[in-house]
Amino acid sequence: MLKPRRPDTIFWVDPSAIQGERIALSPEESHHLLHVHRAVPGGTFIAVDGAGGTYECRLESSDRGVAVGSIAQRWLDQGEPPMPIALLVGLPDAGPAETVVVHAVPLGASAIDFVVSARSERPALGATRLSRLSRIAVSGLKQSRRSRLPALRSSPSWEAAVAHLGEGPRFFADQEVQSRIQSPAGPLQGSISLAVGPPGGFTDEEVETLRKSSFEPISLGNSRLTTETAAIAILAVARNQLK
Amino acid sequence: MLKPRRPDTIFWVDPSAIQGERIALSPEESHHLLHVHRAVPGGTFIAVDGAGGTYECRLESSDRGVAVGSIAQRWLDQGEPPMPIALLVGLPDAGPAETVVVHAVPLGASAIDFVVSARSERPALGATRLSRLSRIAVSGLKQSRRSRLPALRSSPSWEAAVAHLGEGPRFFADQEVQSRIQSPAGPLQGSISLAVGPPGGFTDEEVETLRKSSFEPISLGNSRLTTETAAIAILAVARNQLK
Repeated sequence: MLKPRRPDTIFWVDPSAIQGERIALSPEESHHLLHVHRAVPGGTFIAVDGAGGTYECRLESSDRGVAVGSIAQRWLDQGEPPMPIALLVGLPDAGPAETVVVHAVPLGASAIDFVVSARSERPALGATRLSRLSRIAVSGLKQSRRSRLPALRSSPSWEAAVAHLGEGPRFFADQEVQSRIQSPAGPLQGSISLAVGPPGGFTDEEVETLRKSSFEPISLGNSRLTTETAAIAILAVARNQLK
Repeated sequence: MLKPRRPDTIFWVDPSAIQGERIALSPEESHHLLHVHRAVPGGTFIAVDGAGGTYECRLESSDRGVAVGSIAQRWLDQGEPPMPIALLVGLPDAGPAETVVVHAVPLGASAIDFVVSARSERPALGATRLSRLSRIAVSGLKQSRRSRLPALRSSPSWEAAVAHLGEGPRFFADQEVQSRIQSPAGPLQGSISLAVGPPGGFTDEEVETLRKSSFEPISLGNSRLTTETAAIAILAVARNQLK
């Protein structure tokens, strides 16, 4: 028995496959549209390009298994938070890193950096691992109806991670303090940067690096959180401060 | 090679195994203390009873594999939020339900109810499944240094779920609104109740039930969240409002 097809599935289209008013889906996405959703020429579908564009398309042709559509309508930055939110996470194991991406992409992270920390006990994520995380991110982007694919990185140190950040409010989770993230007082400008420690926590030196880079310590409450729970929580809290 | 033993492991003790100034660990926890941590009489360990008590103990004996300790110091409600937070989650699949428990226990939920909803497409969780979730909750409690084990339930309807709730502010996640959770204005009283819909969302009737039960709709942002991400996010946000 077929499960009911979800009418709201969103398809991924690479920005390079958008030419004027026409888009071509990848073989994999074409297969999904044509054979799972059984779309026929004249039918409509929604595609997202991960660079801010969401498109309502009319299926024109499906020659050689490639679905080609014409763009009927386009939206910019659908589902995106009002300002970019960079999430820096002290590098955990593979499973927790995937958990972070699964939840942080729908929650609006614009960049996720798994930062090698003194207590990480492992090297930076390689290309294979980042590529796997990127597939999870694409899936989360489609499911959550966002339109900008977060940048995924694994910086070799906190100094290197901080060098990637834009101007704007910066916070790191610190069990030693009581203060909370506050809503930005003035108009939103720049980007928000958030940091949580690796399993085992930040070293004093890492905290010093963050403080020197204008990160303010904030509390996520009085219980001890794993790296992945802390990463999701700080993102949910920051996102909630952006009206 | 042995990994370094974490000196901060917390052991579980059933409230019924605390008699005056003496506690007895279960065979499983005793094994962990005596053989993994290689504790010897005179050594100290920390135990939590899930009913608000945390105990610093001195190991007295280990006859027949049962670790018996004398209580040197006790704390009440360590790691607990300033007021109880009940989390109601439209019943999802088994995996997402476990994900909710994994993150919601460290984040301070005092009760988690997986509520059968019109779009859940499955019956309430049975004893076996709840028992599995309870083991995950105990693990999360120990890891997070909380001291009260959340009540785990699976109510057959939203009406039934609401009947379990205490007085206090109530919020449900609703994609249709813009308002956010606000900090309680006066002194903290009663408990906070939070609700998120099942995969596929609330029906209009369920929203009506929640509204009639004094739940206010709040936004978790402008992207679409899965049930489990929404549950973690609403809890993180509510917890952050409790100073």
